[in-house]
Amino acid sequence: MVTKIVLTEDEMPRQWYNIQADLPSPLDPPLGPDGKPIGPEMLAPVFPMNLIEQEVSSRRWIDIPEPILEKLAIWRPSPLYRAHAFEKLLGCPVKIYYKNEGVSPAGSHKPNTAVPQAYYNKVFGIKRLTTETGAGQWGSALSMAGAMFGLEIKVYMVRISFDQKPFRKLMMQVWGANCIASPSAETSFGRSVLEKTPDTPGSLGIAISEAIEDAVQREDTRYSLGSVLNHVMLHQSIIGLEAKKQMEKAGDYPDVIIGCAGGGSNFAGIAFPFVLDKINGKEIDIVPVEPAACPTMTRGPYAYDHGDTAGMTPLLPMHTLGHEFVPAPIHAGGLRYHGMAPLVSKLVQEKLLRPVSLHQNECYKAALDWARTEGFISAPETSHALAAVVVEAQKAKEEGKEKTILFNWSGHGLMDLTGYDNFLSGRLEDVDFTDDQLKEGLKAIKGLPKPTGA
Amino acid sequence: MVTKIVLTEDEMPRQWYNIQADLPSPLDPPLGPDGKPIGPEMLAPVFPMNLIEQEVSSRRWIDIPEPILEKLAIWRPSPLYRAHAFEKLLGCPVKIYYKNEGVSPAGSHKPNTAVPQAYYNKVFGIKRLTTETGAGQWGSALSMAGAMFGLEIKVYMVRISFDQKPFRKLMMQVWGANCIASPSAETSFGRSVLEKTPDTPGSLGIAISEAIEDAVQREDTRYSLGSVLNHVMLHQSIIGLEAKKQMEKAGDYPDVIIGCAGGGSNFAGIAFPFVLDKINGKEIDIVPVEPAACPTMTRGPYAYDHGDTAGMTPLLPMHTLGHEFVPAPIHAGGLRYHGMAPLVSKLVQEKLLRPVSLHQNECYKAALDWARTEGFISAPETSHALAAVVVEAQKAKEEGKEKTILFNWSGHGLMDLTGYDNFLSGRLEDVDFTDDQLKEGLKAIKGLPKPTGA
Repeated sequence: MVTKIVLTEDEMPRQWYNIQADLPSPLDPPLGPDGKPIGPEMLAPVFPMNLIEQEVSSRRWIDIPEPILEKLAIWRPSPLYRAHAFEKLLGCPVKIYYKNEGVSPAGSHKPNTAVPQAYYNKVFGIKRLTTETGAGQWGSALSMAGAMFGLEIKVYMVRISFDQKPFRKLMMQVWGANCIASPSAETSFGRSVLEKTPDTPGSLGIAISEAIEDAVQREDTRYSLGSVLNHVMLHQSIIGLEAKKQMEKAGDYPDVIIGCAGGGSNFAGIAFPFVLDKINGKEIDIVPVEPAACPTMTRGPYAYDHGDTAGMTPLLPMHTLGHEFVPAPIHAGGLRYHGMAPLVSKLVQEKLLRPVSLHQNECYKAALDWARTEGFISAPETSHALAAVVVEAQKAKEEGKEKTILFNWSGHGLMDLTGYDNFLSGRLEDVDFTDDQLKEGLKAIKGLPKPTGA
Repeated sequence: MVTKIVLTEDEMPRQWYNIQADLPSPLDPPLGPDGKPIGPEMLAPVFPMNLIEQEVSSRRWIDIPEPILEKLAIWRPSPLYRAHAFEKLLGCPVKIYYKNEGVSPAGSHKPNTAVPQAYYNKVFGIKRLTTETGAGQWGSALSMAGAMFGLEIKVYMVRISFDQKPFRKLMMQVWGANCIASPSAETSFGRSVLEKTPDTPGSLGIAISEAIEDAVQREDTRYSLGSVLNHVMLHQSIIGLEAKKQMEKAGDYPDVIIGCAGGGSNFAGIAFPFVLDKINGKEIDIVPVEPAACPTMTRGPYAYDHGDTAGMTPLLPMHTLGHEFVPAPIHAGGLRYHGMAPLVSKLVQEKLLRPVSLHQNECYKAALDWARTEGFISAPETSHALAAVVVEAQKAKEEGKEKTILFNWSGHGLMDLTGYDNFLSGRLEDVDFTDDQLKEGLKAIKGLPKPTGA
């Protein structure tokens, strides 16, 4: 009985897969404040040119530089598992495989892009990176990568998380990063918010605005984003490329692929290399899972919208609930985002993906069953993928079909145990998204241009 | 440049190594209250007979049952790493290899024995296990193993840790265990302590007494210990057995082997299979590392002593500071134990090991350098091994010798970041062990029998 399929370092992929090469039709371009497509040079104050090139590239395969491979090798290739004990508990006719991205030093898939981003900034001559973080997974990952490549890292952490999760801040400090609460007095935007609302808990939107303002003001500084953008999806493709090799070693191929999706990067990571097979005719059910409280893909339209709340970023074509929408405070902080990666959104539009939404209580229920069978304690975000696995397994039973399910176990929940406490004590609430919320949210995108096919 | 040497599941050892078969002279037996050797049957109310058999066995190789292998396969074989970036930082003529035991669901080496202990109790017909935990690593590991084999787990957690580390308790609850603060009102010993000292912070000694009292009163219940005992060392030998195979794949062999040692189990795990080579003539420097605040091997005599503070356990032959000694509250809670495993103590006596002691500031310094080069954040206990690696590397440089160092990275520190906070802010104090402490501590063993060679 094989539990774990490992790859040696020699078997680690040497190229990332860029799905932009294989889209049925190309992605609509980002638009500037004037509604016109923006060129790469307009992003230059924010990102280094080598990453901008990846952002707009349509080359199918992009080489992974050796110094990046060396750092990735600390936790990659990540193991692929067969979840025997969980299968037994479910008693459904399914084989369940999962990719364990919790083995990275930061505990999630985030370092897969933090390391390349730090490297490309470093070789471009950048000395310092700014970023925002909500729950803290991304801020931790970039802090680690910054330490590895000798870059100064400044993290603007949403104040409420900063106060509630002192250990996340400590992790970043261990890696030498400077993590401060946002809104802060260190940017003019932060000061303006503090002046109006001194007691604000902060928001991801505010933190992004501060991080960008900080970055564009210093020649030696750039900004770094942990999801949504094309180059982030590219870097995460290593997950699915490894999984393909490992499934082959297992002598199996997935009927269903599942990943949770907030900005879309861990889902894209496991799914995109298989989406290529689907485009080429394979029959696979590919399922991104979002929270019912923030149902970007299942309720939000495909539209042009800003990536941040303040509307400082270019307009991107994506499924969105409106950039001013503030999702309910569910525990899966990484899934509380109003938009969805343009590449994931495009594939939803093309009907290559079948998004679903779930409530947090059923996610924690699945995560508890998982911990007590497979051992690992899942991040609140990851629990959404788990609950979708349960749904698919039960569906297979009802249909009387044998199925092979592959999902991305995107990270461990050791830094986020409070949600389990609330679940175990029955204090966890399910939140539904309302028609009124949708109506209110979409006001923010009224009058903006529409992408092709919207 | 190879960073990580992995083994497939097929290459996982199928037998544990029992060093009792190869000791230069046999271990002195445990003694009862009357000072006479006790037989296995006297331990039967506390441990199941199949584990007692392992405890006293002198068979060199003991088969690992298939159901245990299946669970161990969730994180084993654990990867062996070469610490390239840390080597570069040190600039010494050393190759540094480390075994990563932080990949287990509980984050340390503890599940290596928690899983077999749960299994053997289960097949012996036991329904419920009690144990104590200090910092929480062991309580977490046994909780996980209990969930996997359907055993009820009751953890008596030292009150001060219970109050200071709510997340550790939560981890155990996620795995379905019942974790309560010790002293508790649920045992007569706990009640007697609470009556005398209602505000006591508790101690490991009190918690052990409560766990044993609970276990011996119920036919369906046994007690489980996470270190010190021979069968625990046996279960941990899988670490070193894997490391041997991996070093062979790397085409290398260690000149120096290092592990931190509190009760001795993670050290024994990496070291014992190599001690066999040393007994057979190989030249290896094998170094257990203890805290300067609790220098059991470097300052304590080899003597008969109790394993717990209350003196409820049999007398064991070991290096000890006296069973009433209360070590200073250093952050490495897992190294705050007055005694040392009889097998490790015996090997120190035989001069097959060279114990050293270190202060916590130099340990955190090494752990910080490690996090910023290798990525992983070390447990406070593990940081002691790291600091010893630094010492050995610098010694190699001074001696102008090239050396290969292998050490056990026993666990991650994500649940124990407070120590890093204190270190980073300069609040961390080094504590020296004094002659007066030794004199005072040894009073507790005055008049007790002496083991052979003491």
